[in-house]
Amino acid sequence: MSRKLAPPQATIRRLSVYLRYLSGLENDGVKVISSQDLARRLALNPAQVRKDLAYFGEFGKRGVGYSVKKLRDHIIKILGLQQVRKVAIIGAGGRLGRALALYTGFEKRNFKVSALFDTDREVIGTVLAEDAGQVMHIDALPKIVKERDIEILILTVPAQAIKEVYDLVMLSGVKAVLNFAPFKLISSEDVVVHNVDLTTELESLSYHLRLKEAGEPVLPTEIDE
Amino acid sequence: MSRKLAPPQATIRRLSVYLRYLSGLENDGVKVISSQDLARRLALNPAQVRKDLAYFGEFGKRGVGYSVKKLRDHIIKILGLQQVRKVAIIGAGGRLGRALALYTGFEKRNFKVSALFDTDREVIGTVLAEDAGQVMHIDALPKIVKERDIEILILTVPAQAIKEVYDLVMLSGVKAVLNFAPFKLISSEDVVVHNVDLTTELESLSYHLRLKEAGEPVLPTEIDE
Repeated sequence: MSRKLAPPQATIRRLSVYLRYLSGLENDGVKVISSQDLARRLALNPAQVRKDLAYFGEFGKRGVGYSVKKLRDHIIKILGLQQVRKVAIIGAGGRLGRALALYTGFEKRNFKVSALFDTDREVIGTVLAEDAGQVMHIDALPKIVKERDIEILILTVPAQAIKEVYDLVMLSGVKAVLNFAPFKLISSEDVVVHNVDLTTELESLSYHLRLKEAGEPVLPTEIDE
Repeated sequence: MSRKLAPPQATIRRLSVYLRYLSGLENDGVKVISSQDLARRLALNPAQVRKDLAYFGEFGKRGVGYSVKKLRDHIIKILGLQQVRKVAIIGAGGRLGRALALYTGFEKRNFKVSALFDTDREVIGTVLAEDAGQVMHIDALPKIVKERDIEILILTVPAQAIKEVYDLVMLSGVKAVLNFAPFKLISSEDVVVHNVDLTTELESLSYHLRLKEAGEPVLPTEIDE
Protein backbone atom coordinates (compact mmCIF):
# COMPACT_ATOMS: atom_id res chain seq x y z
CA MET A 1 0.00 0.00 0.00
CA SER A 2 1.25 3.46 -0.79
CA ARG A 3 -0.83 5.12 1.92
CA LYS A 4 1.43 6.47 4.63
CA LEU A 5 0.58 5.23 8.07
CA ALA A 6 0.16 7.66 10.93
CA PRO A 7 2.86 7.15 13.53
CA PRO A 8 1.51 5.89 16.85
CA GLN A 9 1.46 8.19 19.85
CA ALA A 10 4.30 6.16 21.41
CA THR A 11 6.52 7.06 18.45
CA ILE A 12 5.77 10.77 18.87
CA ARG A 13 6.66 10.54 22.57
CA ARG A 14 9.92 8.79 21.74
CA LEU A 15 10.80 11.52 19.24
CA SER A 16 10.71 13.91 22.16
CA VAL A 17 13.01 11.62 24.12
CA TYR A 18 15.39 11.32 21.13
CA LEU A 19 15.36 15.09 20.78
CA ARG A 20 16.43 15.65 24.35
CA TYR A 21 19.22 13.11 24.07
CA LEU A 22 20.42 14.49 20.71
CA SER A 23 20.49 18.02 22.15
CA GLY A 24 22.78 16.76 24.90
CA LEU A 25 25.03 15.04 22.33
CA GLU A 26 25.22 18.20 20.25
CA ASN A 27 26.25 20.21 23.30
CA ASP A 28 28.97 17.64 23.89
CA GLY A 29 30.22 18.05 20.32
CA VAL A 30 29.17 14.59 19.10
CA LYS A 31 28.60 14.61 15.33
CA VAL A 32 27.23 11.18 14.46
CA ILE A 33 25.28 8.48 16.29
CA SER A 34 24.18 5.03 15.20
CA SER A 35 20.69 3.71 15.83
CA GLN A 36 22.32 1.04 18.02
CA ASP A 37 23.92 3.63 20.27
CA LEU A 38 20.79 5.76 20.41
CA ALA A 39 18.74 2.67 21.26
CA ARG A 40 21.16 1.34 23.87
CA ARG A 41 21.37 4.66 25.68
CA LEU A 42 17.58 4.89 25.90
CA ALA A 43 16.94 1.19 26.57
CA LEU A 44 15.08 0.71 23.31
CA ASN A 45 15.36 -1.77 20.52
CA PRO A 46 17.48 -0.48 17.56
CA ALA A 47 14.81 -1.73 15.16
CA GLN A 48 12.29 0.35 17.08
CA VAL A 49 14.41 3.48 16.75
CA ARG A 50 14.82 2.94 13.02
CA LYS A 51 11.11 2.26 12.62
CA ASP A 52 10.20 5.40 14.58
CA LEU A 53 12.38 7.57 12.39
CA ALA A 54 11.34 5.87 9.16
CA TYR A 55 7.81 7.23 9.59
CA PHE A 56 9.21 10.63 8.73
CA GLY A 57 11.46 9.80 5.79
CA GLU A 58 14.92 8.47 5.28
CA PHE A 59 17.75 9.80 7.31
CA GLY A 60 20.91 8.18 8.45
CA LYS A 61 23.33 6.26 6.28
CA ARG A 62 23.54 2.52 6.59
CA GLY A 63 26.72 1.66 8.46
CA VAL A 64 27.43 5.29 9.29
CA GLY A 65 24.56 6.46 11.44
CA TYR A 66 22.68 9.70 11.86
CA SER A 67 24.09 13.20 11.79
CA VAL A 68 23.26 14.44 15.29
CA LYS A 69 22.58 17.98 14.13
CA LYS A 70 20.48 17.02 11.11
CA LEU A 71 18.42 14.50 13.02
CA ARG A 72 17.87 16.98 15.85
CA ASP A 73 16.80 19.73 13.45
CA HIS A 74 14.50 17.34 11.65
CA ILE A 75 12.78 16.19 14.85
CA ILE A 76 12.31 19.82 15.89
CA LYS A 77 10.47 20.38 12.60
CA ILE A 78 8.40 17.21 12.90
CA LEU A 79 7.30 18.21 16.39
CA GLY A 80 6.64 21.80 15.34
CA LEU A 81 9.06 23.19 17.90
CA GLN A 82 10.75 25.89 15.81
CA GLN A 83 8.26 28.40 17.15
CA VAL A 84 7.16 29.37 20.64
CA ARG A 85 3.84 27.74 21.65
CA LYS A 86 1.77 29.69 24.12
CA VAL A 87 0.16 27.86 26.98
CA ALA A 88 -2.50 28.78 29.54
CA ILE A 89 -3.26 27.00 32.80
CA ILE A 90 -6.78 26.53 34.14
CA GLY A 91 -6.87 25.84 37.84
CA ALA A 92 -3.73 27.89 38.38
CA GLY A 93 -4.62 28.58 42.00
CA GLY A 94 -4.37 24.91 42.96
CA ARG A 95 -1.13 23.26 44.04
CA LEU A 96 -0.40 21.47 40.80
CA GLY A 97 -1.47 24.54 38.80
CA ARG A 98 0.92 26.75 40.73
CA ALA A 99 3.75 24.25 40.39
CA LEU A 100 3.26 24.14 36.61
CA ALA A 101 2.85 27.93 36.33
CA LEU A 102 6.28 28.32 37.87
CA TYR A 103 7.96 25.36 36.18
CA THR A 104 10.98 26.73 34.31
CA GLY A 105 11.41 23.63 32.17
CA PHE A 106 8.63 24.56 29.74
CA GLU A 107 10.21 27.80 28.60
CA LYS A 108 13.52 26.07 27.95
CA ARG A 109 11.67 23.92 25.42
CA ASN A 110 9.84 26.80 23.72
CA PHE A 111 6.54 26.62 25.60
CA LYS A 112 5.53 29.87 27.23
CA VAL A 113 2.95 30.02 30.02
CA SER A 114 1.10 33.17 28.95
CA ALA A 115 -2.15 33.22 30.95
CA LEU A 116 -3.55 31.76 34.16
CA PHE A 117 -7.17 31.08 35.03
CA ASP A 118 -9.12 30.04 38.08
CA THR A 119 -12.58 30.47 39.59
CA ASP A 120 -11.41 31.21 43.13
CA ARG A 121 -11.96 34.90 44.01
CA GLU A 122 -9.03 34.75 46.41
CA VAL A 123 -6.67 33.95 43.56
CA ILE A 124 -8.14 36.01 40.71
CA GLY A 125 -6.22 39.26 40.28
CA THR A 126 -3.06 37.97 41.96
CA VAL A 127 0.20 37.38 40.10
CA LEU A 128 1.54 33.84 40.47
CA ALA A 129 4.02 33.89 37.58
CA GLU A 130 5.21 37.20 36.26
CA ASP A 131 5.10 36.60 32.55
CA ALA A 132 1.55 35.26 32.74
CA GLY A 133 0.00 38.43 34.22
CA GLN A 134 -2.83 38.40 36.75
CA VAL A 135 -4.89 35.27 37.27
CA MET A 136 -8.23 35.71 35.46
CA HIS A 137 -11.67 34.20 35.80
CA ILE A 138 -12.22 31.37 33.33
CA ASP A 139 -15.08 33.31 31.72
CA ALA A 140 -12.39 35.42 30.05
CA LEU A 141 -10.85 32.33 28.41
CA PRO A 142 -12.12 32.67 24.80
CA LYS A 143 -11.21 36.36 24.69
CA ILE A 144 -7.71 35.83 26.10
CA VAL A 145 -7.01 32.78 23.90
CA LYS A 146 -7.65 35.00 20.89
CA GLU A 147 -5.81 38.07 22.17
CA ARG A 148 -2.70 36.23 23.33
CA ASP A 149 -2.72 33.56 20.64
CA ILE A 150 -2.82 30.67 23.08
CA GLU A 151 -2.65 27.23 21.51
CA ILE A 152 -2.43 24.82 24.43
CA LEU A 153 -4.41 24.64 27.66
CA ILE A 154 -3.23 22.79 30.72
CA LEU A 155 -6.12 21.69 32.92
CA THR A 156 -5.45 21.11 36.62
CA VAL A 157 -8.98 21.38 37.97
CA PRO A 158 -10.57 18.95 40.44
CA ALA A 159 -12.80 16.19 39.01
CA GLN A 160 -16.02 17.93 40.05
CA ALA A 161 -15.07 21.07 38.10
CA ILE A 162 -14.58 19.31 34.78
CA LYS A 163 -18.23 19.55 33.73
CA GLU A 164 -18.19 23.28 34.47
CA VAL A 165 -15.11 23.99 32.35
CA TYR A 166 -15.50 21.40 29.60
CA ASP A 167 -17.60 23.37 27.08
CA LEU A 168 -15.66 26.54 27.78
CA VAL A 169 -12.39 24.73 27.08
CA MET A 170 -13.52 22.87 23.97
CA LEU A 171 -15.04 26.01 22.44
CA SER A 172 -12.33 28.44 23.57
CA GLY A 173 -10.38 28.30 20.34
CA VAL A 174 -7.38 26.39 21.68
CA LYS A 175 -6.27 23.43 19.62
CA ALA A 176 -4.69 21.26 22.26
CA VAL A 177 -5.34 20.34 25.88
CA LEU A 178 -3.15 18.63 28.43
CA ASN A 179 -5.55 17.35 31.07
CA PHE A 180 -4.41 16.45 34.59
CA ALA A 181 -7.92 16.25 36.02
CA PRO A 182 -8.83 12.71 37.10
CA PHE A 183 -11.41 12.40 34.37
CA LYS A 184 -10.68 11.25 30.86
CA LEU A 185 -11.33 14.01 28.31
CA ILE A 186 -11.86 12.92 24.74
CA SER A 187 -10.35 14.67 21.71
CA SER A 188 -12.74 16.37 19.30
CA GLU A 189 -12.14 17.15 15.65
CA ASP A 190 -10.85 20.61 16.63
CA VAL A 191 -9.11 19.91 19.91
CA VAL A 192 -6.50 17.24 20.63
CA VAL A 193 -6.53 16.13 24.25
CA HIS A 194 -3.84 14.24 26.12
CA ASN A 195 -4.73 12.95 29.53
CA VAL A 196 -2.06 12.57 32.21
CA ASP A 197 -3.47 10.72 35.16
CA LEU A 198 -1.09 10.50 38.10
CA THR A 199 -3.14 7.83 39.83
CA THR A 200 -3.17 5.71 36.67
CA GLU A 201 0.62 5.86 36.70
CA LEU A 202 0.71 4.61 40.28
CA GLU A 203 -1.86 1.94 39.48
CA SER A 204 0.18 0.62 36.60
CA LEU A 205 3.22 0.46 38.90
CA SER A 206 1.06 -1.42 41.39
CA TYR A 207 0.34 -3.94 38.63
CA HIS A 208 4.07 -4.65 38.35
CA LEU A 209 4.37 -4.96 42.14
CA ARG A 210 1.53 -7.47 42.07
CA LEU A 211 3.29 -9.50 39.36
CA LYS A 212 6.44 -9.58 41.48
CA GLU A 213 4.50 -10.63 44.56
CA ALA A 214 2.98 -13.46 42.53
CA GLY A 215 6.45 -14.47 41.36
CA GLU A 216 5.50 -13.81 37.74
CA PRO A 217 8.25 -12.55 35.49
CA VAL A 218 7.97 -8.87 34.73
CA LEU A 219 8.14 -8.72 30.99
CA PRO A 220 9.28 -5.65 29.17
CA THR A 221 6.35 -3.50 28.17
CA GLU A 222 8.22 -0.31 27.32
CA ILE A 223 7.62 -0.75 23.61
CA ASP A 224 3.88 -0.74 23.25
CA GLU A 225 3.35 -1.52 19.64
CA MET B 1 1.31 -20.96 20.84
CA SER B 2 0.20 -21.66 24.37
CA ARG B 3 2.55 -19.07 25.86
CA LYS B 4 0.54 -16.24 27.36
CA LEU B 5 1.47 -12.84 26.04
CA ALA B 6 2.25 -10.02 28.40
CA PRO B 7 -0.30 -7.22 28.08
CA PRO B 8 1.17 -4.00 26.73
CA GLN B 9 1.58 -1.01 29.00
CA ALA B 10 -1.29 0.74 27.21
CA THR B 11 -3.63 -2.08 28.27
CA ILE B 12 -2.59 -1.73 31.90
CA ARG B 13 -3.24 2.02 31.75
CA ARG B 14 -6.66 1.43 30.24
CA LEU B 15 -7.50 -1.03 33.04
CA SER B 16 -7.03 1.87 35.41
CA VAL B 17 -9.38 4.00 33.30
CA TYR B 18 -11.96 1.17 33.17
CA LEU B 19 -11.68 0.79 36.92
CA ARG B 20 -12.48 4.44 37.56
CA TYR B 21 -15.44 4.34 35.24
CA LEU B 22 -16.76 1.06 36.70
CA SER B 23 -16.48 2.48 40.23
CA GLY B 24 -18.69 5.39 39.14
CA LEU B 25 -21.20 2.98 37.60
CA GLU B 26 -21.31 0.90 40.75
CA ASN B 27 -21.97 3.99 42.84
CA ASP B 28 -24.84 4.78 40.47
CA GLY B 29 -26.28 1.28 40.98
CA VAL B 30 -25.57 0.02 37.45
CA LYS B 31 -25.26 -3.79 37.43
CA VAL B 32 -24.20 -4.73 33.91
CA ILE B 33 -22.33 -3.01 31.07
CA SER B 34 -21.57 -4.15 27.54
CA SER B 35 -18.15 -3.74 25.97
CA GLN B 36 -19.84 -1.42 23.42
CA ASP B 37 -21.07 0.92 26.14
CA LEU B 38 -17.79 0.85 28.03
CA ALA B 39 -15.93 1.56 24.80
CA ARG B 40 -18.25 4.34 23.66
CA ARG B 41 -18.09 6.13 26.99
CA LEU B 42 -14.29 6.10 26.93
CA ALA B 43 -13.88 6.75 23.19
CA LEU B 44 -12.29 3.38 22.59
CA ASN B 45 -12.94 0.63 20.12
CA PRO B 46 -15.16 -2.18 21.57
CA ALA B 47 -12.75 -4.76 20.12
CA GLN B 48 -9.94 -3.02 22.01
CA VAL B 49 -11.86 -3.22 25.27
CA ARG B 50 -12.56 -6.92 24.77
CA LYS B 51 -8.93 -7.56 23.82
CA ASP B 52 -7.67 -5.68 26.88
CA LEU B 53 -9.84 -7.74 29.20
CA ALA B 54 -9.14 -11.02 27.42
CA TYR B 55 -5.49 -10.83 28.52
CA PHE B 56 -6.71 -11.61 32.00
CA GLY B 57 -9.18 -14.40 31.33
CA GLU B 58 -12.77 -14.68 30.27
CA PHE B 59 -15.35 -12.47 31.79
CA GLY B 60 -18.55 -11.12 30.41
CA LYS B 61 -21.23 -13.12 28.68
CA ARG B 62 -21.70 -12.77 24.98
CA GLY B 63 -24.81 -10.68 24.36
CA VAL B 64 -25.18 -9.81 28.03
CA GLY B 65 -22.09 -7.88 29.00
CA TYR B 66 -19.94 -7.60 32.07
CA SER B 67 -21.10 -7.60 35.66
CA VAL B 68 -19.96 -4.17 36.85
CA LYS B 69 -19.09 -5.38 40.33
CA LYS B 70 -17.28 -8.54 39.20
CA LEU B 71 -15.28 -6.74 36.56
CA ARG B 72 -14.36 -3.97 38.98
CA ASP B 73 -13.26 -6.45 41.66
CA HIS B 74 -11.27 -8.38 39.09
CA ILE B 75 -9.44 -5.30 37.82
CA ILE B 76 -8.64 -4.32 41.42
CA LYS B 77 -7.00 -7.73 41.83
CA ILE B 78 -5.14 -7.54 38.51
CA LEU B 79 -3.74 -4.14 39.44
CA GLY B 80 -2.87 -5.26 42.97
CA LEU B 81 -5.02 -2.55 44.53
CA GLN B 82 -6.65 -4.54 47.34
CA GLN B 83 -3.90 -3.39 49.66
CA VAL B 84 -2.51 0.03 50.55
CA ARG B 85 0.73 0.80 48.70
CA LYS B 86 3.11 3.10 50.50
CA VAL B 87 4.78 5.88 48.55
CA ALA B 88 7.67 8.24 49.28
CA ILE B 89 8.52 11.45 47.45
CA ILE B 90 12.09 12.55 46.72
CA GLY B 91 12.38 16.25 46.03
CA ALA B 92 9.44 16.99 48.31
CA GLY B 93 10.63 20.53 48.93
CA GLY B 94 10.19 21.54 45.28
CA ARG B 95 6.91 22.84 43.88
CA LEU B 96 5.85 19.66 42.15
CA GLY B 97 6.98 17.57 45.12
CA ARG B 98 4.90 19.64 47.49
CA ALA B 99 1.89 19.52 45.22
CA LEU B 100 2.10 15.72 45.07
CA ALA B 101 2.76 15.39 48.81
CA LEU B 102 -0.53 17.16 49.46
CA TYR B 103 -2.53 15.61 46.62
CA THR B 104 -5.56 13.95 48.20
CA GLY B 105 -6.35 11.86 45.12
CA PHE B 106 -3.70 9.24 45.86
CA GLU B 107 -5.10 8.19 49.20
CA LYS B 108 -8.58 7.79 47.72
CA ARG B 109 -7.08 5.14 45.45
CA ASN B 110 -5.16 3.29 48.18
CA PHE B 111 -1.76 4.95 47.78
CA LYS B 112 -0.40 6.49 50.94
CA VAL B 113 2.38 9.07 50.90
CA SER B 114 4.37 7.87 53.91
CA ALA B 115 7.74 9.65 53.74
CA LEU B 116 9.24 12.77 52.18
CA PHE B 117 12.87 13.39 51.23
CA ASP B 118 14.94 16.30 50.05
CA THR B 119 18.52 17.56 50.24
CA ASP B 120 17.66 21.17 51.07
CA ARG B 121 18.52 21.97 54.70
CA GLU B 122 15.77 24.58 54.77
CA VAL B 123 13.16 21.91 54.14
CA ILE B 124 14.57 18.95 56.09
CA GLY B 125 12.86 18.65 59.46
CA THR B 126 9.74 20.53 58.40
CA VAL B 127 6.33 18.90 58.06
CA LEU B 128 4.77 19.38 54.62
CA ALA B 129 2.12 16.68 54.84
CA GLU B 130 1.07 15.44 58.23
CA ASP B 131 0.88 11.71 57.61
CA ALA B 132 4.33 11.67 56.04
CA GLY B 133 6.20 13.04 59.08
CA GLN B 134 9.19 15.35 58.84
CA VAL B 135 11.06 15.75 55.58
CA MET B 136 14.27 13.71 55.77
CA HIS B 137 17.63 13.81 54.03
CA ILE B 138 17.79 11.32 51.16
CA ASP B 139 20.65 9.50 52.88
CA ALA B 140 18.00 8.03 55.18
CA LEU B 141 16.15 6.51 52.22
CA PRO B 142 17.19 2.82 52.46
CA LYS B 143 16.55 2.76 56.21
CA ILE B 144 13.12 4.39 55.93
CA VAL B 145 12.06 2.27 52.95
CA LYS B 146 12.64 -0.79 55.11
CA GLU B 147 11.11 0.60 58.30
CA ARG B 148 7.97 2.00 56.68
CA ASP B 149 7.61 -0.69 54.04
CA ILE B 150 7.67 1.76 51.14
CA GLU B 151 7.14 0.21 47.72
CA ILE B 152 6.96 3.16 45.33
CA LEU B 153 9.15 6.26 45.02
CA ILE B 154 8.05 9.40 43.26
CA LEU B 155 11.00 11.41 41.95
CA THR B 156 10.55 15.13 41.43
CA VAL B 157 14.17 16.23 41.44
CA PRO B 158 15.75 18.61 38.90
CA ALA B 159 17.67 17.05 36.00
CA GLN B 160 21.07 17.84 37.49
CA ALA B 161 20.20 15.95 40.70
CA ILE B 162 19.38 12.68 38.96
CA LYS B 163 22.94 11.39 38.95
CA GLU B 164 23.22 12.10 42.66
CA VAL B 165 20.06 10.19 43.59
CA TYR B 166 20.07 7.44 40.97
CA ASP B 167 22.12 4.77 42.79
CA LEU B 168 20.47 5.58 46.08
CA VAL B 169 17.05 5.12 44.52
CA MET B 170 17.82 1.96 42.58
CA LEU B 171 19.45 0.31 45.60
CA SER B 172 17.02 1.61 48.22
CA GLY B 173 14.85 -1.48 48.23
CA VAL B 174 11.80 0.07 46.55
CA LYS B 175 10.34 -1.89 43.68
CA ALA B 176 8.81 0.86 41.61
CA VAL B 177 9.64 4.44 40.66
CA LEU B 178 7.51 7.15 39.11
CA ASN B 179 9.98 9.62 37.67
CA PHE B 180 9.03 13.22 36.86
CA ALA B 181 12.62 14.40 36.41
CA PRO B 182 13.34 15.45 32.81
CA PHE B 183 15.68 12.54 32.30
CA LYS B 184 14.64 9.07 31.21
CA LEU B 185 15.31 6.48 33.91
CA ILE B 186 15.52 2.91 32.79
CA SER B 187 13.94 -0.02 34.63
CA SER B 188 16.25 -2.61 36.15
CA GLU B 189 15.46 -6.22 36.98
CA ASP B 190 14.50 -5.17 40.51
CA VAL B 191 12.95 -1.77 39.95
CA VAL B 192 10.21 -0.86 37.47
CA VAL B 193 10.41 2.76 36.37
CA HIS B 194 7.71 4.81 34.68
CA ASN B 195 8.75 8.17 33.34
CA VAL B 196 6.26 11.02 33.15
CA ASP B 197 7.74 13.88 31.22
CA LEU B 198 5.57 16.97 31.18
CA THR B 199 7.55 18.57 28.37
CA THR B 200 7.20 15.43 26.26
CA GLU B 201 3.44 15.73 26.67
CA LEU B 202 3.52 19.32 25.42
CA GLU B 203 5.85 18.35 22.58
CA SER B 204 3.52 15.64 21.42
CA LEU B 205 0.65 18.14 21.46
CA SER B 206 2.85 20.49 19.45
CA TYR B 207 3.20 17.70 16.87
CA HIS B 208 -0.58 17.70 16.43
CA LEU B 209 -0.62 21.50 16.14
CA ARG B 210 2.02 21.26 13.44
CA LEU B 211 -0.08 18.68 11.54
CA LYS B 212 -3.06 21.03 11.67
CA GLU B 213 -0.97 23.95 10.50
CA ALA B 214 0.20 21.84 7.58
CA GLY B 215 -3.41 20.92 6.81
CA GLU B 216 -2.69 17.25 7.39
CA PRO B 217 -5.49 15.18 8.85
CA VAL B 218 -4.99 14.38 12.50
CA LEU B 219 -5.46 10.67 12.65
CA PRO B 220 -6.51 8.94 15.81
CA THR B 221 -3.52 7.66 17.73
CA GLU B 222 -5.19 6.97 21.05
CA ILE B 223 -4.92 3.22 20.57
CA ASP B 224 -1.25 2.59 20.30
CA GLU B 225 -1.02 -1.03 19.46
